[in-house]
Amino acid sequence: MFTQPIPTLVRDGNAVVILDQTLLPYHSEQRTLATLADVATAIRSMQVRGAPLIGATAAFGVAIALLADRSDAQLDHALQTLAATRPTAVNLHWALARMDAKLRPLPESARGDAAWAEAEAIRTADADTCSAIGEHGVALIEEVATRRNGPVRVMTHCNAGWLATCGAGTALAPVYRAHAKGIAVHVWVSETRPRNQGLLTAWELREAGVPHSLIADNAAGILLARGEVDLVITGADRVAANGDSANKVGTYLKALAAREHGVPFHVAAPYSTVDFACAEGGAIPIEDRGPAEVRSVAGITDKGALVSVRLAPDATGAANPAFDVTPAQLITSIITERGVTAPGRLRELYPEKAE
Amino acid sequence: MFTQPIPTLVRDGNAVVILDQTLLPYHSEQRTLATLADVATAIRSMQVRGAPLIGATAAFGVAIALLADRSDAQLDHALQTLAATRPTAVNLHWALARMDAKLRPLPESARGDAAWAEAEAIRTADADTCSAIGEHGVALIEEVATRRNGPVRVMTHCNAGWLATCGAGTALAPVYRAHAKGIAVHVWVSETRPRNQGLLTAWELREAGVPHSLIADNAAGILLARGEVDLVITGADRVAANGDSANKVGTYLKALAAREHGVPFHVAAPYSTVDFACAEGGAIPIEDRGPAEVRSVAGITDKGALVSVRLAPDATGAANPAFDVTPAQLITSIITERGVTAPGRLRELYPEKAE
Repeated sequence: MFTQPIPTLVRDGNAVVILDQTLLPYHSEQRTLATLADVATAIRSMQVRGAPLIGATAAFGVAIALLADRSDAQLDHALQTLAATRPTAVNLHWALARMDAKLRPLPESARGDAAWAEAEAIRTADADTCSAIGEHGVALIEEVATRRNGPVRVMTHCNAGWLATCGAGTALAPVYRAHAKGIAVHVWVSETRPRNQGLLTAWELREAGVPHSLIADNAAGILLARGEVDLVITGADRVAANGDSANKVGTYLKALAAREHGVPFHVAAPYSTVDFACAEGGAIPIEDRGPAEVRSVAGITDKGALVSVRLAPDATGAANPAFDVTPAQLITSIITERGVTAPGRLRELYPEKAE
Repeated sequence: MFTQPIPTLVRDGNAVVILDQTLLPYHSEQRTLATLADVATAIRSMQVRGAPLIGATAAFGVAIALLADRSDAQLDHALQTLAATRPTAVNLHWALARMDAKLRPLPESARGDAAWAEAEAIRTADADTCSAIGEHGVALIEEVATRRNGPVRVMTHCNAGWLATCGAGTALAPVYRAHAKGIAVHVWVSETRPRNQGLLTAWELREAGVPHSLIADNAAGILLARGEVDLVITGADRVAANGDSANKVGTYLKALAAREHGVPFHVAAPYSTVDFACAEGGAIPIEDRGPAEVRSVAGITDKGALVSVRLAPDATGAANPAFDVTPAQLITSIITERGVTAPGRLRELYPEKAE
C-alpha cells in the first residue's frame, strides 16, 4: 500500500487535517477542518481538489456537522451546504448521497459513530481503488522494463497522482507501484496550461522520490517522435460507454502523437469515472472556463511571494476549452481497479453498472 | 505593400534601431545597436527574433563591425561572432555567407559602403519576400472565404508575423493580405510555451487590427476536432529538401491534429529557409534551450511591473527541445515567394538552388 508523503486527508479526533493545495507547489501547508463551514470553504476554494478527494472530504464534513446536533434538520443542512460548494462535481454528490443513505435510517444516537465510520470507509475505498489501479497498471510498466535498459519513460498530463486522491492516485498509481518495486521510471510531466496542474505533478513526484522532468505541453510531439517515451498514462474526468475519454485539454494531442509513433496510450479510470449513460465522447459536455486563465499565470517572485501575473491584456480575446475528448481508437487500454481492458470492453468489467 | 506599425529594423546613421522584442507584449521599446557586441547580444537574447529578421540584423551587424576596421581578420571575427549566436537559425548563416561573398573580394576601402548597401538589400528583399508570400498565400484564404459565411479561421503557432521579419511576416503575410483585401479573418493564436511568442502574435495582430483569440497550446486539438479551424499556417525555421519542416516546438502536434480532421496545414517558407543541403528533417539539429525557460514565465504584476516568476524550483528537472519537425506528408503546401507548392516539389521552384 502506497503511503502518501503528506496525507491529503486524515482524521484527527473530531476534525480532519488536509493538505491545503491552493499554495502548492510553492508552499505546503496542512490545515485542520473542525467545523462544517471549514469543510465547505476547503472544498469551495479548492484547498482540496481531485474528484475522489473532494468526495471523501465532504463525507467527513457530514460527520463533523453532526458532532453536536444529529437531527434530520442538521443532516439536511450539512448535505445542502456541502452540495452547494461544487455543484457539478459528480463524486461530491455521490459521496453525500451515500452518507444520506447510511445515516437517515439510523436513530440520532447512532448517527455520530456511523458518520465517521462511513466517511472513513469512503476514504479507505478510494485508497484501495488507487492501489488496485497501481497493481494492475504496473504490469504495463514491467513489460517495458523487461526489454529495455534504463528507466521506463512514462508521459503523463495534468495531475492524477496522490494529491488528487486519498491514496496513490490514478494515472500515477502504476508509476508509484513500479517505483516501490524497484523498477526504474522517469516521468515526463507536461505543465498543463492554462492552470499548470503539471507543477503539482512535479511536486508530488519529487515528494515521493520519483525521477521526472517538467516539459512544456508543446514538447510532447518531439519526445514521442524521438522514441523518448515508452508509454503514456493519463487520468480521465469522464469515460463514455464506448471508451471515449474526456480529460484535461491537451490529452488528445498526446494521444494522436502516441499513435503516430506506436507508443501505447493508457487511461487510468476508476469506477466512479465511467459513465455508461453517456454513449460516446461527443455527448460529454466540455466546460469553457473563460479567458482569464489563459491571460494570466501564477508563480513566485524572486522574493518568494506567490503572485498571479498577466500575460495578455483584457483587450486580447481568449478561448479556454478546459477538456478534450480522446476517442477510444487512440486508447490502448483503460486501467481500472478491476483490471486492464480494451476501451471497447469496459462493460465486461462493470456488468452491474452497464445494465 | 504592408507597412509595419512599428519598424522592426531600420538603419540610423552608423547604427540600426530595432524594436526590442524581449519587452513585448508588455512594453514596446526601440533600441539602438551601435556595436558588433550590441548586435550579437540582441540576436542571442532574442531582442530580435524570427529567422528573416535575425538574418537581416546580422547583416547590419557585419556593417557595424567594419566601421573602424575593415580587415579580413575583422570580417572573420564579425562573421564568427554572429554565427555563434543561434545555431539552428539557417537564415543567420545564409545572410552571413552572403555578406562574406560580397565583401571578401573587395578592397578594404570599398567594404564599408558595400556592407551597408548589402545589408539594406537583404532587409528590402525580405520585405519584398513577405509581400510575395502574402500575395500567393492569400489565395488559400480566399478559397475558403468563397464557400463559408463568417470569418476564415486561421490557426497559427509561435510568431511568424511582421515582428519576425522586415515586412508583413511569413505565416501571417497571407492573413494581413486578406485583411487588407476586406476578407474577414479570425486567427487562433497559440501561446507557444515555454517562451510565449504567441503573446507577440496577439500583440502584433492587435496593432494591425486583425481579429484573433489567444489559446493555450493544449486547446489546438479540440478546436480542430470541433471544426473551428479552416486552415493552419505556420512559419518554418528550416525546410529540408524533401519538404520536412522544422519549426517552434508544438507545430508538429498541430500538424498531426490538422491531418486527423482534414484541415489543410500550410508552411510559409521563404527561399532563405529552404535548405537543399539537408535531405530530410531527421538531419535538422534541434536546439535544446535548457530548463530555465520551462521553470519560469514572464508577465506583468497588478502594479504594471514586468517580472519573471518561477513556476518550479531548480530541483525540478526540465527538458526544453525548442523545435520539432513536421514531416512533409503532413504538409498540404509550402507557401513561398515564388508560389504555393506541394512540399515534395520545392526543387521545381528553386532550380538554381537545388542543383
